[in-house]
Amino acid sequence: MFNLNIDTTEKGLQVDQVYDLIIIGGGPAGLSAALYGARKGLKVALVGEKMGGQVQDTSSVENYMGFEFVSGQGLAKAFEDHVSSLKIDMLKDVRIKSIDRDQDFLLRADNYMTYRAKTVLIATGSKSRSLGVPGEETFYGRGVTYCGICDGPLFKDKVVTVVGGGNSAVEAAIDLAKIASRVHLVHRSAFRADQILVDRLMDLENVDIHLGTQIESIQGQDQVEWVDLKGDRTGPLETQGVLVEIGYLPNSQFVQVDKNARGEIIIDKNHQTSVPGIFAAGDVTTEAYKQIIVAASEGAKAALAINHYLNNL
Amino acid sequence: MFNLNIDTTEKGLQVDQVYDLIIIGGGPAGLSAALYGARKGLKVALVGEKMGGQVQDTSSVENYMGFEFVSGQGLAKAFEDHVSSLKIDMLKDVRIKSIDRDQDFLLRADNYMTYRAKTVLIATGSKSRSLGVPGEETFYGRGVTYCGICDGPLFKDKVVTVVGGGNSAVEAAIDLAKIASRVHLVHRSAFRADQILVDRLMDLENVDIHLGTQIESIQGQDQVEWVDLKGDRTGPLETQGVLVEIGYLPNSQFVQVDKNARGEIIIDKNHQTSVPGIFAAGDVTTEAYKQIIVAASEGAKAALAINHYLNNL
Repeated sequence: MFNLNIDTTEKGLQVDQVYDLIIIGGGPAGLSAALYGARKGLKVALVGEKMGGQVQDTSSVENYMGFEFVSGQGLAKAFEDHVSSLKIDMLKDVRIKSIDRDQDFLLRADNYMTYRAKTVLIATGSKSRSLGVPGEETFYGRGVTYCGICDGPLFKDKVVTVVGGGNSAVEAAIDLAKIASRVHLVHRSAFRADQILVDRLMDLENVDIHLGTQIESIQGQDQVEWVDLKGDRTGPLETQGVLVEIGYLPNSQFVQVDKNARGEIIIDKNHQTSVPGIFAAGDVTTEAYKQIIVAASEGAKAALAINHYLNNL
Repeated sequence: MFNLNIDTTEKGLQVDQVYDLIIIGGGPAGLSAALYGARKGLKVALVGEKMGGQVQDTSSVENYMGFEFVSGQGLAKAFEDHVSSLKIDMLKDVRIKSIDRDQDFLLRADNYMTYRAKTVLIATGSKSRSLGVPGEETFYGRGVTYCGICDGPLFKDKVVTVVGGGNSAVEAAIDLAKIASRVHLVHRSAFRADQILVDRLMDLENVDIHLGTQIESIQGQDQVEWVDLKGDRTGPLETQGVLVEIGYLPNSQFVQVDKNARGEIIIDKNHQTSVPGIFAAGDVTTEAYKQIIVAASEGAKAALAINHYLNNL
């Protein structure tokens, strides 16, 4: 009724055409898929809430090959500029609400428009679970981090506190013990990690383990200086970093495909989901390593697999 | 006897220590693994014949996310500079001849030195098979290419000739038909590609297929202008590009691990080969997509998997 087909952005999306591929998500996986898809001659559209995805929220990136040191916003801009140089219809600040199907896939967006495609790539990423305690948001990027692989080197010769009791948390603590002067591990209940990792952690001389304990708040001036604990251990604990390793929340709720218990989309080696024609790549999938370089690679591979799928239709 | 333990490069490799990880190969997979391994606090060494690997030989790269347009040498230098900023022992222009084992892995190099490591990552890449015809080397980067995914866009509205009869060649020809004005496919015998792909290729109006035919030479002034054919079709064929898609030669001869019929190293999802402690990543493996971004990602993932393996030893 009010579908006036008005494009609100420079390139926008066409409602009167069937795209070969619509990519949902503007992070490294989605942008890299767009790049590879367009270079293959596919008619590609990309709908994203935020170009660059989680990279935008990262203060600095030091482990994306080729960029020795770059701000998150700088890297996100390099990605977006790269993709913008190609013929891709892009729409920012729009969320896809649902995917239906007649002979094509119908993507309904929160701008009241519906877009059509032969294939869809879900590249909506994930969010790290947060503790939800005072100080956590304030000190994000100033001692608080959700990525041990990315930010471990920042804690060289410092005291750092890891939160969590699964394999990721325990392995992060083991790894940080090689870099940091002292590592505290805080977990509210018992370990869920593999025993061999727990044994190894307990053998380390510069690690203190606080089970049955939670962080009540994160405190400091400009940077994290201490955390207040509650539970079996209480009171302040001096620390210069807090690494929260309590899992991910994949942005996969809007799409009806097979997922694992964590909500991650299950894909085969060709990035195909349980619904033929719907593919997925990057942090929203079961891919274990949530890294920028990995997401960019998975997006590229998904686009090539989609091209192959379209060639074989 | 003449093992004088002399380091011939700035950082060199230590013969008197056991590295956590020695990486063989200085391409995107090896360099990215070095970056991720060192950031995890591992004692990492890298031995490579050529830093940057095949990237060095590429005239320009347009599909590595974040670099809109960069020369191969420029990208290789960005990679090497990035890795050089970390504490990694690196040795250039050296080839590992064999890997033996006592309690550690013993890597024997062609500089008569032996290096020791707890784990080894094979990241030695692969070479594209060449036709071995006059003009092929001369016109490499001036019309002759071995990577359709990379260089397809260069042939926009041009005439291009694809050589090969497998799935890669046929799919490359289908994809190029969307971009180029005309595509010739030349193959010395019958198709080995899937019938559905062959059917699709034959349906395309701007594609000519020349079976039982070989390229005798590649000709032109500064750029490719034509090829001379022999076999069922003979004589000159006007073309501005030649895409050679006749397979890869992985650099895997020196290591005794399980490989597929093409010589690619077989790895599991943790990048482990058939020999525990020896890992592989990038173009030397069964990974289907031989792309820079993919190799960089696979190297990073392998380093993280190796770190996990060492934590669980």
